[in-house]
Amino acid sequence: MRPLILITNDDGVDAKGIRILVDIARLYADVVVMAPEANSSGSAHSFTGMRPIRANTISKSPECSIYSCDGTPVDCIKLAYEYFCPRKPDLVLSGINHGSNSSINILYSGTMGAVVEASVSGLNAIGFSLLDHNADADFTAAVPYIRDIIADVLANGLPNEVSLNVNIPCPSNGILKGVRVCRQSRARWMDSYEKRVDPHGKEYYWLTGRFECDDCGPDTDQWALENGYVSIVPTTPDYTDFRSLDIIARRFGSNISAS
Amino acid sequence: MRPLILITNDDGVDAKGIRILVDIARLYADVVVMAPEANSSGSAHSFTGMRPIRANTISKSPECSIYSCDGTPVDCIKLAYEYFCPRKPDLVLSGINHGSNSSINILYSGTMGAVVEASVSGLNAIGFSLLDHNADADFTAAVPYIRDIIADVLANGLPNEVSLNVNIPCPSNGILKGVRVCRQSRARWMDSYEKRVDPHGKEYYWLTGRFECDDCGPDTDQWALENGYVSIVPTTPDYTDFRSLDIIARRFGSNISAS
Repeated sequence: MRPLILITNDDGVDAKGIRILVDIARLYADVVVMAPEANSSGSAHSFTGMRPIRANTISKSPECSIYSCDGTPVDCIKLAYEYFCPRKPDLVLSGINHGSNSSINILYSGTMGAVVEASVSGLNAIGFSLLDHNADADFTAAVPYIRDIIADVLANGLPNEVSLNVNIPCPSNGILKGVRVCRQSRARWMDSYEKRVDPHGKEYYWLTGRFECDDCGPDTDQWALENGYVSIVPTTPDYTDFRSLDIIARRFGSNISAS
Repeated sequence: MRPLILITNDDGVDAKGIRILVDIARLYADVVVMAPEANSSGSAHSFTGMRPIRANTISKSPECSIYSCDGTPVDCIKLAYEYFCPRKPDLVLSGINHGSNSSINILYSGTMGAVVEASVSGLNAIGFSLLDHNADADFTAAVPYIRDIIADVLANGLPNEVSLNVNIPCPSNGILKGVRVCRQSRARWMDSYEKRVDPHGKEYYWLTGRFECDDCGPDTDQWALENGYVSIVPTTPDYTDFRSLDIIARRFGSNISAS
C-alpha cells in the first residue's frame, strides 16, 4: 500500500500553493486534502469548539480526495484524521503558504498551527511557506527542495513531537543556494492601527504593521532567507522557557508560599 | 504615578474571572481592560487582519477604564497598547480563565495567546487560569496567590520575552499547598467528532475530546495541579526545538543540496 499524506493550508482550498503541494505529494503517496473553504490567514492554533463544523466533498478517489470545511487549519487536521483519512497518515503537509512563516510569524500562522497540531497527535508534519504573498506566486524554484524534504521525512521520519517549519525565499536572481537548518529569529511586529469612520459615524480600526528583526545571526532563519537559503526550523509544541526555569523557580519558590 | 496594568481574557469582558482579576489589579495599579465582547475560547494566537475591528467603551476613569472589542485576545493587546492605554503598561494580565490552560492546552488558549503576544512586545505578562469551567466558579482560594504573583512581577519584572502561565487547581478540600515552578507536560487531546444530521439532511460535526497525559513527573505542571499546587510555567515565544537542532542539521545539510 502507498503511503498516505494528509494536506491542509490556511490560504484556503483554492489557493495555488496547496495545488502545487498536492501535485508534489502525489509523486510519493495517496493524498487526502482537507483545507479551509475560505482564507484563514492568522488563525494560528485556534480551533472551533462553540459551533459545529460542516465539510464538503470536492472530489474523491482512492489516490486523491479533496475536501474543504468551514473550520480552521487545526480543525482540518482533527476532523480529517478522524473522519476523512482511510488510514493513519504517514505524513501531514501544510501550505505551500503564500507569505513568510519564519521568525515570530509562526505564532500567528494557521499553516504552522496545523503542523504543530499534527505533531502533538504523533504524526510527522511539515509546513512549507514561500516568501511571496501574490495569489499567482511562482513556486518553480521551490519545488525540488519541497520534493526532497518530503522524500527524506517519508523515509526517515522525525523525532517525537518535532515538526519542520520550512520557508523558501524568492531571491531576485531566482537562484536558491541550498538549505540551512536554523533557529527561529527573535523579532516583533510594530503594530499600527488605521482608525477610520464609517458612513454612520462609527469608528473602526484596520491592523497594519511593520516587521522588525535585529536577531539576524548566521544561525537564524532570518539570515538564511535573506541570503538565499531555504530555512528549516525544527519546531516543538513545548513552550516552556527552560533557560529561565531555575531562576523563576528560586524566585517564586521563596517569595510565595501557601497563604 | 501608579503603575498601569492592561487586562484581557478569552472568556469575554463579562466573565466573572476577569472581574476578580480587575479587583486584584486595582490594589496595585491603574487598570485598562480591553477584552473580547463575546467568549473567544480556543482562539489561541489568532488575530484579525482581513476585516477591521470595532471597540466599545464600557466605562472610563483615570483609575480604571473598561473597553471591549470584536477581536481576539491577541487583537485586544495590540489595539489597547496602541490606542487605549494612556501610557506603556507595566504589566499585562490575562484571565482569570474559567478552565485549565496547563500542559498542551496552552497551544489552543486565547488567554495565553494574549500573554505571549504581550511578551513579544517587550511587556511583562502573566496568564491566570482556574481549573473550573463553571461561569460562577469560586476564586476565593486563588486570590492570595494571584495577588502575590502580581506583586512580585510588578516589583521584579521577568526575563526578556518570558511570560508566566499560572494555573490554579480546585482541590476537593479547598486547600492550596503552595506554588511549583514547572515545565509544560506533554499530552494530547483524543479528539472525537459527533456527527449529526440537520433538519435539511445535511451532516455537521461537533468536536468533543478526552485529555490524555502520561507525562506526570514531579517537574511537570500536571503533577503540581494534581497534587494541590499552583503551577507556574515560564513560557517562551521561541518554538525552536533546540534538542533536535543538531540531528536535523546533520541530516538535511547532507541529504539536500541546491538542485
